Amino acid sequence: MTAAPVMHERLLADFAAGRTPALARAISIVENHRPGFEQLLATWHPMLGRARRIGLTGPPGAGKSTLTTALARAYRKAGLTVGIVAVDPTSPFTGGALLGDRIRMEDIALDPGVYIRSLATRGSLGGLSAATRETCDVLDAFGMDRILIETVGVGQSELDVARTADTSLVVLVPESGDSIQTLKAGVMEIADVFTVNKSDRPGADRLRNEIEIMLGMRGGSAMRNVPAHHGVDLSRNNLVKQVRAAARAEDADVWTPPVLGTVGVQEQGIDELVEALDRHFRYLERSGTLRQRRRARLRERVVEVVEDKARRRLWNDAATIAWLEARLPALESGQDTPFGIADALLSRSADLLTRTTT
Amino acid sequence: MTAAPVMHERLLADFAAGRTPALARAISIVENHRPGFEQLLATWHPMLGRARRIGLTGPPGAGKSTLTTALARAYRKAGLTVGIVAVDPTSPFTGGALLGDRIRMEDIALDPGVYIRSLATRGSLGGLSAATRETCDVLDAFGMDRILIETVGVGQSELDVARTADTSLVVLVPESGDSIQTLKAGVMEIADVFTVNKSDRPGADRLRNEIEIMLGMRGGSAMRNVPAHHGVDLSRNNLVKQVRAAARAEDADVWTPPVLGTVGVQEQGIDELVEALDRHFRYLERSGTLRQRRRARLRERVVEVVEDKARRRLWNDAATIAWLEARLPALESGQDTPFGIADALLSRSADLLTRTTT
Repeated sequence: MTAAPVMHERLLADFAAGRTPALARAISIVENHRPGFEQLLATWHPMLGRARRIGLTGPPGAGKSTLTTALARAYRKAGLTVGIVAVDPTSPFTGGALLGDRIRMEDIALDPGVYIRSLATRGSLGGLSAATRETCDVLDAFGMDRILIETVGVGQSELDVARTADTSLVVLVPESGDSIQTLKAGVMEIADVFTVNKSDRPGADRLRNEIEIMLGMRGGSAMRNVPAHHGVDLSRNNLVKQVRAAARAEDADVWTPPVLGTVGVQEQGIDELVEALDRHFRYLERSGTLRQRRRARLRERVVEVVEDKARRRLWNDAATIAWLEARLPALESGQDTPFGIADALLSRSADLLTRTTT
Repeated sequence: MTAAPVMHERLLADFAAGRTPALARAISIVENHRPGFEQLLATWHPMLGRARRIGLTGPPGAGKSTLTTALARAYRKAGLTVGIVAVDPTSPFTGGALLGDRIRMEDIALDPGVYIRSLATRGSLGGLSAATRETCDVLDAFGMDRILIETVGVGQSELDVARTADTSLVVLVPESGDSIQTLKAGVMEIADVFTVNKSDRPGADRLRNEIEIMLGMRGGSAMRNVPAHHGVDLSRNNLVKQVRAAARAEDADVWTPPVLGTVGVQEQGIDELVEALDRHFRYLERSGTLRQRRRARLRERVVEVVEDKARRRLWNDAATIAWLEARLPALESGQDTPFGIADALLSRSADLLTRTTT
């Protein structure tokens, strides 16, 4: 344990020199919250913000992996370095799917200007969005120009992950047309750019029209300026109100999400997609939205770190666990309740929770 | 706000009298953490433990809803009351699927001895497994004899939900055969009973054989006694060791998960399934495993409540939020880091975290 700081000095030097093995090791340390991970992230914190973070979300089978690969190739051609974070909430029943997707990425995986990392669920240990944010921070500090965050479309966790990006690309397929009415509000709200992938299939044009109509109906443009999906969850009402007021006060610089068509496997429409993503980033910078979003991301990051620290301080403390175990019989017999015990546990934990260690 | 206790007195009386509208209202209050929800759950805490909780997990399309419905019908025929909790991690891209499943349940939904509740993701507000546990507690206190917890097969959250049950039924289909090798360890460990549903399709017998071979290979029987999947996440190594030692010390009462075959839509194999679930429950009681699992569940429940209380106390506090906002500029400029601010935030929050209110 005492050797850890020394090892990290070496790691920091290799990392600063742009050595990929150091990047890989850094992500592993951070992902698994190994000793010293906080110091590493704190060291790199002032270097963040260079990379553009682009999230790709959409239903399973929409071709997100193929599109991620195509985007990475396009960025490489333009001389940019690319980090790819493939977020897999590891369905225990579909463990095989991702592997197939990875194989398609093989050619770019051999490119030293590309770094690919798969992230699996970290259980209750802080969640996928925290792990995603931390991994992206490491890639950003390493100097990657673009970070592509690809999620395997499943539920709320996907929206949480999407919120960690600067730009959210929603990937649909013509077959999504049947369920377009059921796209939850969350999807429409996070989408900065849409693409109908596999656009050579029937129904692509109709779907593109439908999305555009939905965007129009929702009066989306007036709202696009507002990062309503970024904010501290439990107290955001108040904050969101402030941010909205600030946004309204500005001359409304309007972003209407474009609806593109792509055929990922044939690399069709990729240039237009890259252009739309660049255009969105310019909008983010020009309108001040980039700063708002990144500030919201930092706020959420602090909330995550606070909760993670509190959890670790409590549940890694042997005396607390022993205290809890001793109360289980009263809980079983119904003499005490989880709420009473929780209050008592927090009452006795003031020192534990507030002492400044990890 | 001052009227709330009075309203809850009335609710408690109606609930005790077995009135379904009171059950529905109670679940809504608890699910949304409305004022007074802790008092309600605390009042009912001593009444818990009568219901048998059965979790159904498996990949999408395995027919879990149909099987849930068939099981509910069988229990009703035996004169038992049934609560059904349908847990939907609300994929934003497949919002329509659940509705179709619900329609199949229509006939039992009209039976006053059955109560069906759908649970959607509660975002960061404590998570699905907490919401599931709380809803099951309300159904248990109301007097339901059996509680069926059905999840729509997606990832880690599903395993978390499964861990809230006394008995976990894993539902597969012949088509799952291709991916049986990829079933993550978690699935094999939580399964108390397997059924290959849609068993009239080709490949059913082969899949049943494969599962049985896997169970044998894994030397599962010696482990079955141990509730390895129940425990406080962050400190469980130590606790699990204790529980395992205790289990080894007992005369090993062995449970080997049976692998059944069912055809849900034709109600084939349901009697055998009910029998297997009953047999498992008798094993749980006889071996002491029931008590171990329920004790582990209570332990996890306290952990959940502690974390939820800590979160609410911090993030509902206007002064804390204002303090955090004031530090964002230093965070943006890289002068400060999320870790430094998190430490400082916790340091100043001792009173807030430890005061005994909600």
